[in-house]
Amino acid sequence: MVGRVSSKSLTLPILNNVLVSAEKNFLNLAATDLEIGINWWTLSKTETEGKITIPSHLLLNFINLLPNKKINLQTDNNNLSIECESYKTKIKGLSADEFPIIPKINNADYISFDCALFCKSLGQIVDIPVPSTTRPEISGVYFLFQKDLVMMVATDSFRLGEKKIFLKNDSPLKKDYALIIPQKTAKELINVFGEKEGKIKVCFSPNQIMFESQMAETDHPQIQFVSRLIEGEYPNYQEIIPKKYTTQIILDKNEFSNQIKSASLFAGRTNEIKIKTNSSKELVISSQNQEIGDYQSAVPAKISGDNAEVAFNHRFLADGLTNIKSSEIIFELNSDSGPGVLKPVGDQTYLYVVMPIKAS
Amino acid sequence: MVGRVSSKSLTLPILNNVLVSAEKNFLNLAATDLEIGINWWTLSKTETEGKITIPSHLLLNFINLLPNKKINLQTDNNNLSIECESYKTKIKGLSADEFPIIPKINNADYISFDCALFCKSLGQIVDIPVPSTTRPEISGVYFLFQKDLVMMVATDSFRLGEKKIFLKNDSPLKKDYALIIPQKTAKELINVFGEKEGKIKVCFSPNQIMFESQMAETDHPQIQFVSRLIEGEYPNYQEIIPKKYTTQIILDKNEFSNQIKSASLFAGRTNEIKIKTNSSKELVISSQNQEIGDYQSAVPAKISGDNAEVAFNHRFLADGLTNIKSSEIIFELNSDSGPGVLKPVGDQTYLYVVMPIKAS
Repeated sequence: MVGRVSSKSLTLPILNNVLVSAEKNFLNLAATDLEIGINWWTLSKTETEGKITIPSHLLLNFINLLPNKKINLQTDNNNLSIECESYKTKIKGLSADEFPIIPKINNADYISFDCALFCKSLGQIVDIPVPSTTRPEISGVYFLFQKDLVMMVATDSFRLGEKKIFLKNDSPLKKDYALIIPQKTAKELINVFGEKEGKIKVCFSPNQIMFESQMAETDHPQIQFVSRLIEGEYPNYQEIIPKKYTTQIILDKNEFSNQIKSASLFAGRTNEIKIKTNSSKELVISSQNQEIGDYQSAVPAKISGDNAEVAFNHRFLADGLTNIKSSEIIFELNSDSGPGVLKPVGDQTYLYVVMPIKAS
Repeated sequence: MVGRVSSKSLTLPILNNVLVSAEKNFLNLAATDLEIGINWWTLSKTETEGKITIPSHLLLNFINLLPNKKINLQTDNNNLSIECESYKTKIKGLSADEFPIIPKINNADYISFDCALFCKSLGQIVDIPVPSTTRPEISGVYFLFQKDLVMMVATDSFRLGEKKIFLKNDSPLKKDYALIIPQKTAKELINVFGEKEGKIKVCFSPNQIMFESQMAETDHPQIQFVSRLIEGEYPNYQEIIPKKYTTQIILDKNEFSNQIKSASLFAGRTNEIKIKTNSSKELVISSQNQEIGDYQSAVPAKISGDNAEVAFNHRFLADGLTNIKSSEIIFELNSDSGPGVLKPVGDQTYLYVVMPIKAS
């Protein structure tokens, strides 16, 4: 977990290392890439307190091969000796003094909620942003933390995902926090906390955010994950989300997804596939390409509103469907030039807006 | 299976296609990269006989998305229409007349044996060769087919694997065949026939070899797989296999394999690790690198013969162990400059020779 954060830095080699600290009753591992910093603790029997930094890749590969038995760690100048049953090694390290300080956020305003739900929710939008140097604010994930609601939004200007987590009990949050975290931070959050049970605590400071989980049956943190924020103002995305629709389609997600994949094979380089309604019971999906051939299929659907014929990028539709977990979905269209909206049936916490390919 | 053989040929685009033929009671699919040719048959209801070639990648991706229901195929000039439930497509193809002829081997001398055993055996040596333009004969796999024995050998001049299959019943083979098949052919053989039950039939001709499996409960072939042979004479590899040893070590394969992996982390760029015996009960494995650190471990082993200290490339040892399926292995050394031999305990059909790194 800690090793993932170590960066392959050529200019600052110590960033490739993990800081290993023997504290009073704990072993602490820490790593940073100067954007994200992570601290992890476990209970240990410490004979003498001390610190060293060790190449994280080497430590990780070596520890992974050891049997699940007691490990002894001992420093000797800038070497770390590791012994575990018949395995003995001495690894060359670098002095802990050179390791960058990972910022701590103390006595800050905070909010706590279910860790697994948070990571699952974040997973529904985290793949949407794309790196952008001209508009760095949309290259991250937008968060709005309120007393009873956590809202997450991501967009790449062609599509947008919005996910809400409603909190059952009011949190002790003193004010609202609107902020943008880097996409890499959001992805690492899922990797680090995705399998954790219990609560995750989020602490706020003007330029940093910290996520923390606690060691079972103690009040000591197990993981502290600190990230910088992206500066700038997130666009007023509410304007993009349609408030009404001209056509509503309800259909089976997996069948729709399969038909989109089939149609995509014949879409050619524009990625364009056509969605067409001409009855209240069937959605027609088609694509064609002069070099490859034609495709057409019909999927059973419940359709209301105007007849519609709209072209979409098949990748954007497929991504949206992947992010929806229900078996049935609602697909709302706004004629052939307005945005479409994908939503799960029976779940008001998620929506995915996708722009059509306009007829040229 | 057939699509894997289609090559991405820019000079001869038809090689990217699969030949689809409606024969009397069969559908036949065929593909070739001019080195390997493959034919596959299945029972079908044919209304009108005919042929067309279709891009194999597109056909494969499309068929994979279809439900497991009846498919209708129909040609219309150079288009193939495919219908399966609500999925309808028309794919542009190329005329079957331009498709290269895949050679057939008829009335040839042949041998048959268990297909699964053959593929499993071939898998134990198939990864050893490396492409070589100066010595093309060792870039392939050497086969010797005899009345009661199939022998397979592969080498890259640093290590050599030999596998024997003893046949219980004498085959109808009229003479011995010694030949070299390309490594790619050998790998595709495992992909194509690896999951098949029953017998595989091998037919010989001067420049080609054909492998055939039959359709269940018929005498019609299901798969015919033809490959060219590599010309040239295979080196007299028997000379390399040591007839005796100075030290014999018997130990647990998984434990040895794990220790080699651990030692490899500290081996540095030469990949060199040391194997040392100084008691009759323990094998010591060590490695060291000035930049990274040191490693040492001891594995319980039954050791007889002279004390030994030999350096090996850890990759070559690890590859040999991967190819051995028994839980215990025999490791025979010939001082610090002669080849080592890895063998499974209780199985005389496999051996792996590995050259040491000589002290400079």
